[in-house]
Amino acid sequence: MTIQKKDLGAAVLATEYAVRGPIVARAQELEKQGKEIIYCNIGNPQSFGQRPLTWLRQLLALCEYPALMDLPLAVFPADAVETARAILEGSRHGMGAYSESEGLRFIREAVAEFIRERDGIGADPEAIFLTDGASKGVQTILKLLLASPTDGIMIPIPQYPLYSATITLYEGRIVPYYLDEADHWKLNRSMLDDSLRAARAQGTRVRAICIINPGNPTGSVLDEKNIAMVLDFAREHGLAVLADEVYQENIYLPGDRFVSFAHVLEAMGISDVSLFSFNSCSKGFLGECGVRGGYFEYRNVPPDVAAQILKLLSVCLCSNLAGQVATYAMVHPPRSGDPSYELYNREKKAILEELKLRAALLVEGLNKIDGVSCNAIAGAMYAFPRIMLPVGVSDEEYCMALLEETGICVVPGSGFGQAEGTAHFRTTILPPTEKIRQVVEKLSAFHESYVLVKY
Amino acid sequence: MTIQKKDLGAAVLATEYAVRGPIVARAQELEKQGKEIIYCNIGNPQSFGQRPLTWLRQLLALCEYPALMDLPLAVFPADAVETARAILEGSRHGMGAYSESEGLRFIREAVAEFIRERDGIGADPEAIFLTDGASKGVQTILKLLLASPTDGIMIPIPQYPLYSATITLYEGRIVPYYLDEADHWKLNRSMLDDSLRAARAQGTRVRAICIINPGNPTGSVLDEKNIAMVLDFAREHGLAVLADEVYQENIYLPGDRFVSFAHVLEAMGISDVSLFSFNSCSKGFLGECGVRGGYFEYRNVPPDVAAQILKLLSVCLCSNLAGQVATYAMVHPPRSGDPSYELYNREKKAILEELKLRAALLVEGLNKIDGVSCNAIAGAMYAFPRIMLPVGVSDEEYCMALLEETGICVVPGSGFGQAEGTAHFRTTILPPTEKIRQVVEKLSAFHESYVLVKY
Repeated sequence: MTIQKKDLGAAVLATEYAVRGPIVARAQELEKQGKEIIYCNIGNPQSFGQRPLTWLRQLLALCEYPALMDLPLAVFPADAVETARAILEGSRHGMGAYSESEGLRFIREAVAEFIRERDGIGADPEAIFLTDGASKGVQTILKLLLASPTDGIMIPIPQYPLYSATITLYEGRIVPYYLDEADHWKLNRSMLDDSLRAARAQGTRVRAICIINPGNPTGSVLDEKNIAMVLDFAREHGLAVLADEVYQENIYLPGDRFVSFAHVLEAMGISDVSLFSFNSCSKGFLGECGVRGGYFEYRNVPPDVAAQILKLLSVCLCSNLAGQVATYAMVHPPRSGDPSYELYNREKKAILEELKLRAALLVEGLNKIDGVSCNAIAGAMYAFPRIMLPVGVSDEEYCMALLEETGICVVPGSGFGQAEGTAHFRTTILPPTEKIRQVVEKLSAFHESYVLVKY
Repeated sequence: MTIQKKDLGAAVLATEYAVRGPIVARAQELEKQGKEIIYCNIGNPQSFGQRPLTWLRQLLALCEYPALMDLPLAVFPADAVETARAILEGSRHGMGAYSESEGLRFIREAVAEFIRERDGIGADPEAIFLTDGASKGVQTILKLLLASPTDGIMIPIPQYPLYSATITLYEGRIVPYYLDEADHWKLNRSMLDDSLRAARAQGTRVRAICIINPGNPTGSVLDEKNIAMVLDFAREHGLAVLADEVYQENIYLPGDRFVSFAHVLEAMGISDVSLFSFNSCSKGFLGECGVRGGYFEYRNVPPDVAAQILKLLSVCLCSNLAGQVATYAMVHPPRSGDPSYELYNREKKAILEELKLRAALLVEGLNKIDGVSCNAIAGAMYAFPRIMLPVGVSDEEYCMALLEETGICVVPGSGFGQAEGTAHFRTTILPPTEKIRQVVEKLSAFHESYVLVKY
């Protein structure tokens, strides 16, 4: 007899990842039938034509095929060639060998230097692990922390479903804390206290709190005070902190800036809270989703626990080397005066300005639709508008109908979690400016007619 | 309070992966102190100077930086440029976007074509998933199958510790079946029956049997009859089959050839055994360990179960695109008459002949040592000699002493499993020919003096 679905484990069956769930499957079907689909379900910038940064791709090409370094023509700028040479030397065996399980030491040193410069704090390359995207790092730390079925992890609601999916798969408990939509999806201490109290009342041993900053799907950006509040809370209750900071370059509102958890932890002199901070090549202005590059850094983790993390990562040997090199490109951009500097900055600026423009356009458009309201997008790559639906209509149904009618593929709010009785969807801000206008128009027309018919 | 080791889960703590365990950690320490280490612990060919295949690296460089296609000089052969162009067109969004969770359709089609040609059977691209090396695929399928703590998976002893580590981590039961060292580590039906009977007597629900062919660490190669026997056994007992075929190109003895489980399954017309077959870019003659490319193919898996596999893989979005392109290069080599054909074959032949020579040299040398005996290496990349040790001395101690004394880093047999009362180690055949001779000499001298002192 072949494998039967009924014999699979409850955790596998219960795992849900809506960003690539049934609505996306339906979109792919429709696309095969010839319908034009606008994939707003996933933060995948280059699928919308965002161009890769020349610097990063030149480094990858040179490292993959070092014979290119000796071309007689000046195909590559000198700093790209020099940097690729340094990476290959630092790697000792090039791109074709497994690296240490934690990633190439040379690249971990560059990440540490990046953190030192960004945050004005010390950073230890031995406390940095290179991973296949941020996701693999998050999964490893969640696996580490979930020791028994009564262990729980605090996650924001709404959240990025990597967290809910992984906690479910590893048979832990999701401990939700509800972000305040009426206050720009911000955090406050009382919502954290409420969440923890409720979990403990159910016998849950809460192990950690996850924070996504800038927020996915909410677009909110935390300031130093918010972060200090979270760290105080974690310290008081003996929780580890997972800081998902993959959108740290995606900040759009004047006056906002990215503040890292590591910075605040050090500023407060906290040595008794374990912190894991995640970063990725897939977001920011690089948008290199395909390379699966990323890293995490830990602080205040005892060596015998760090050894367990290394062991877990070693089972699959190492993260992919192209991803490691892309991570190097991310943390080590060309410096002022280098031949690649000007082009790099031009490309970077163009991408970030476009994203800012699209974020503003999208929110403005959404808020003009009767029955739709959306907080400003301060950061990240998404809008998460609230939609007023007729009683008995779910946001899944709404999103499926939107797809069928308009070809716009978004993810229902239920895939991220939302306050009881509310409905939302998540859409990326990534379609090109003229398409954003189209999306807003189509959404508007759809919403009006859908709600009319359903009432 | 920070995370404490005592709060971690039993499964995490119990997980062991000796290929990168304490002996390797010690080797890295010694290396930092200036000692020359020969890393025979891991099948990492390019760390020993094996050169990458030009074809594969040219495709990677062209796909990463397509501007190279338009160079005025003939830096790249026309077929490499054409193939890279076809991959990029097939990908639709290039290397910088997430692909479908199962991998690019264009590349899965090429894998299906490769299987059709290799095995003379049909193959469906929809039943192929591209993964970050074979390891991630194996882990996904083990997670799928282990539904409860009484579920078990049959694995060979000795085995590659990815299996034992993952089953432990996912809280399943290891069900060992012992390969017969006296008969070239071959399989027979009675050892499978014994294993299953013992497991069932302990209340274990056995879900699947894993086979590594060619064998790691044993070096044995299965013939069609062996494979048919395993499939009959699986059918009789309702087990799924995991066929780890990552060494399918590494066959050294005249008269042996690789036969796939898929081929035999189809030849026998079996439709009621679920089969998962794994392949990788890291082994064979490519030895591209750093790229983390690989795939698995399934047969006889119901659509509702396949949907669960897709869901599990979708949580981390997709495997890395460089790995996907490397997989394409592996399954789609230059054809006779193509500009790259001759060089490709020359490089391939040179690598395979070297490996064959090293395998023979190593076994011959090992068998000359008094107290060491080793089966012929028919396939894969390892020797797994049996060593006669004084009573009370473990193979861990032996390997650690070997490292301290000679700088040779091998993995103790206990890391792979072995029959009670026997001791072994695993060493790769990968050091260059002149180093293999050195390894054998050093081993011989070490063994003699170590055993002398300990008696």
